[in-house]
Amino acid sequence: MHFSDRANEYSARVESTLDLWIPANSVEPESLHRALRYAVFNGGKRIRPLLTYAAAEAIETAAEDVDPMAAAVELIHCYSLVHDDLPAMDDDDLRRGKPTLHKAFDEATAILAGDALLTLAFEGMGRADAPAAAIVELARAAGSSGMVGGQAIDLAFEATRPTRDSLEAMFRKKTGALIRAAVVMPAAHRRPDDPVRQALVDYSEAIGLAFQIVDDLLDIEGSTEEIGKPAGSDRDNDKATWPALFGVDTARGHAGELIAAAWTALERLPGSTDGLRWLGERIVRRTS
Amino acid sequence: MHFSDRANEYSARVESTLDLWIPANSVEPESLHRALRYAVFNGGKRIRPLLTYAAAEAIETAAEDVDPMAAAVELIHCYSLVHDDLPAMDDDDLRRGKPTLHKAFDEATAILAGDALLTLAFEGMGRADAPAAAIVELARAAGSSGMVGGQAIDLAFEATRPTRDSLEAMFRKKTGALIRAAVVMPAAHRRPDDPVRQALVDYSEAIGLAFQIVDDLLDIEGSTEEIGKPAGSDRDNDKATWPALFGVDTARGHAGELIAAAWTALERLPGSTDGLRWLGERIVRRTS
Repeated sequence: MHFSDRANEYSARVESTLDLWIPANSVEPESLHRALRYAVFNGGKRIRPLLTYAAAEAIETAAEDVDPMAAAVELIHCYSLVHDDLPAMDDDDLRRGKPTLHKAFDEATAILAGDALLTLAFEGMGRADAPAAAIVELARAAGSSGMVGGQAIDLAFEATRPTRDSLEAMFRKKTGALIRAAVVMPAAHRRPDDPVRQALVDYSEAIGLAFQIVDDLLDIEGSTEEIGKPAGSDRDNDKATWPALFGVDTARGHAGELIAAAWTALERLPGSTDGLRWLGERIVRRTS
Repeated sequence: MHFSDRANEYSARVESTLDLWIPANSVEPESLHRALRYAVFNGGKRIRPLLTYAAAEAIETAAEDVDPMAAAVELIHCYSLVHDDLPAMDDDDLRRGKPTLHKAFDEATAILAGDALLTLAFEGMGRADAPAAAIVELARAAGSSGMVGGQAIDLAFEATRPTRDSLEAMFRKKTGALIRAAVVMPAAHRRPDDPVRQALVDYSEAIGLAFQIVDDLLDIEGSTEEIGKPAGSDRDNDKATWPALFGVDTARGHAGELIAAAWTALERLPGSTDGLRWLGERIVRRTS
């Protein structure tokens, strides 16, 4: 049985954990809890949780041991989308074809809902008694030296034309860090120089960067319907993106090189790497 | 030696932990890290960390065991002030007599700095290998059923005149939950029905509510200079406060009853309760 057959089971696991963690709409304050569910149950593809389950397979760890990590990384991803869409940030009205949270509710609710989802990620990890090393891995990836820092650098880029190195450094933080955490958390309790842990780090860093490059390519090449937000919005906002700065062909080529590096890293893992390979392929071949 | 003599030592401990946890201004992204330090090293009185150290004394736990809890609860408090001051929330320009973060920097930086401080609280707890129960206690207090939920309810009150019960329920979440976490975290690993843990819960819930009532009284009675923000801003914003709804005398009386209940709870604690009593007195007698 191939990973693609198990992906539905893993998706169901993460939906179930998220549903268990997020208070019901009937719990006070009701409108905030409706907002949390609006932000999380939005048709997202759960790529980060699937990476966590695939990484668990690759190091021969049971799915139930990584359920909290899979749900937590998705909550962090969902909160980041809510805050990034805010008027003071990327100012987006649509997300996956639906009004963004601050449009569907209001701006204060969107700020608070993001805060609550971020907090819930750590509450859930704590309740499940997840290893402290996994909590640190996730928090470091999400914080000022990771995702939040990357968003701050990206916003600052609007005033300057970045170099390739500074653009790549920004991508590694903004989207790469959380993808890395999704993959590395199941092995976070191992020593930093453990070769299996290092193989996951190498795979995830390559995939993470490729993911962002493909995302930027989609913004140029996709239609509004396919990508669920106005096509060309990055260009219209004069955003720093790889294809905008170095051309579409160079960007595609670099994404291909990164994927090749990811496949090499997989050879150093003891368990089944079907899932990490399948997800890597989906990431570069996706059309939306 | 009385707790007031040790308070300086405890304050120094929490400043030192916070300084260690928050990346230096020279770490990329520099302006975000400057914003984190602006938000945290702002002359705050560190009441919540002092409560954590005082609670540790009351249950005969060493200060070094609660250093991460003290720093983490202060980070959560600081992040909440940054987000609450945002234009879409309370829209405040001054905090302790200085420009609020979104005025000193910009709105995007204030959103991201708040997110980063919240994340850092859990990264620090994880790095210090704090008990999972303490992480859960803090996250629950900070999240949608605690502080964030209280802020959501408070914003919704602007449209309706709350009852005393609903106002009290809001206060318990908005400011009470985090004060409770500050006090209870050192005993969070004990069973929920442990009498010592319960005494800390009873003390902290009474003090937390009294703290909010005194805060609202200060807004009415204090001067702009004393409270570091425009006096009467709650009234001008037509905010739901205890004195606004039930009168200043009733509010003062209720605060006094709560403090009496807090003193009773202290009798059930095995260690020195000097600190919890001294802090409780400071909370009700403060003029700013």
